Amino acid sequence: MTEFGTSRSGTNDIWEAIYTQRAVRYWEEREVPQELLWRIVDAATHAPNGSNRQLWRWLVLTDPAKRGRIAAAVRERVQIPAKWIAGARDAGDSSRLLMYRGSQHLFDRFDEAPALIVPCQHQFASATGATADSLVAGASIYGAVQNLQLAARALGLGTVLTTAQVWIGDVLRSELGIPEDAQPAAVIPVGYPAVDFGPTRRKPVEEVTFWNGWGVHGTRKPSG
Amino acid sequence: MTEFGTSRSGTNDIWEAIYTQRAVRYWEEREVPQELLWRIVDAATHAPNGSNRQLWRWLVLTDPAKRGRIAAAVRERVQIPAKWIAGARDAGDSSRLLMYRGSQHLFDRFDEAPALIVPCQHQFASATGATADSLVAGASIYGAVQNLQLAARALGLGTVLTTAQVWIGDVLRSELGIPEDAQPAAVIPVGYPAVDFGPTRRKPVEEVTFWNGWGVHGTRKPSG
Repeated sequence: MTEFGTSRSGTNDIWEAIYTQRAVRYWEEREVPQELLWRIVDAATHAPNGSNRQLWRWLVLTDPAKRGRIAAAVRERVQIPAKWIAGARDAGDSSRLLMYRGSQHLFDRFDEAPALIVPCQHQFASATGATADSLVAGASIYGAVQNLQLAARALGLGTVLTTAQVWIGDVLRSELGIPEDAQPAAVIPVGYPAVDFGPTRRKPVEEVTFWNGWGVHGTRKPSG
Repeated sequence: MTEFGTSRSGTNDIWEAIYTQRAVRYWEEREVPQELLWRIVDAATHAPNGSNRQLWRWLVLTDPAKRGRIAAAVRERVQIPAKWIAGARDAGDSSRLLMYRGSQHLFDRFDEAPALIVPCQHQFASATGATADSLVAGASIYGAVQNLQLAARALGLGTVLTTAQVWIGDVLRSELGIPEDAQPAAVIPVGYPAVDFGPTRRKPVEEVTFWNGWGVHGTRKPSG
């Protein structure tokens, strides 16, 4: 059931989409049809969100000049720390090394993907008094981001969730005219992948699941 | 493509799952097999998360006594504000009224669903210096929450994303032994729905999508 292989095609199977949604950081030189960008944003907007107020706005960025200036800012400001790379190398953690190498490639060529999507929250307010920069504010945007990424996977499009806005928020605001009462929540490259989708590595679920109390592990019985 | 009807069955179709993932607030009196709870948590853990550190922990709560004490706290502390209900009534917004009525029912009987899932972030740290209570911290947990809810929908299980931890965090911590260095991000009832899944209402995607600059709307052309 969770044994999926590698593939570069789309899929309508929800389990395949979930289990093979790799972070894509290498892209084909190929435009994404505008209708597919509409479709992934439309899927995003069907996610749960607080009181269904839909305070999200989806900035879709295809303009090469704007993407180029954003990419220049990312290249200048975002590096994988050398000590992380050394740490992974010392630990012999090849999958982590591969992730860091891919991330550095992405940060060096952030306009290689033909589209960037910047989801924002606009005029966020909460009955709880939570601010726009709180964990709980994320409940009304990142589920939609995951819908967008799964829908992209379903259509054979690659994405990677970055929080590059933390480093280049000023550049995003000036290039895209994002007002002060809006908060970018992510910057997501989208394009046709130059790599295969495929199974992702995670800790065993038993290790991160507790039953009826913190630290209480359960045993998953093999299903018959 | 996005025209799905109502149904109470599961589905492996990703589009149907996304477009019919209603918030479920009414439940059948029927246990959820433990294996299905494992499956939805397992799907959750395959979501993107910062540097794949998987700082999440998934508390699955089936114990009736604990659920009862949590439900008592929710009943005591969480109410839909009367002015919201009056506002929706004055505006003739029947779908909002229905949502508020459902939410109040849920808050009054929070242990009606046979399981509660409390996703937590544990020892959150970020290369950006973002704190555990920041918007960006949500990028590493709420996508996983959406995987969990979509996987539940696929299996014919209903869920609803609540942020009840904002009001009853102290009770969750004492009932479940959640340590100080962990942050509950949501409280999600799970069970077999006593209502149908079905299409969700959203603003037109053109209204919330901007192209290459804030406030710049595009026109979605009908696909051929």
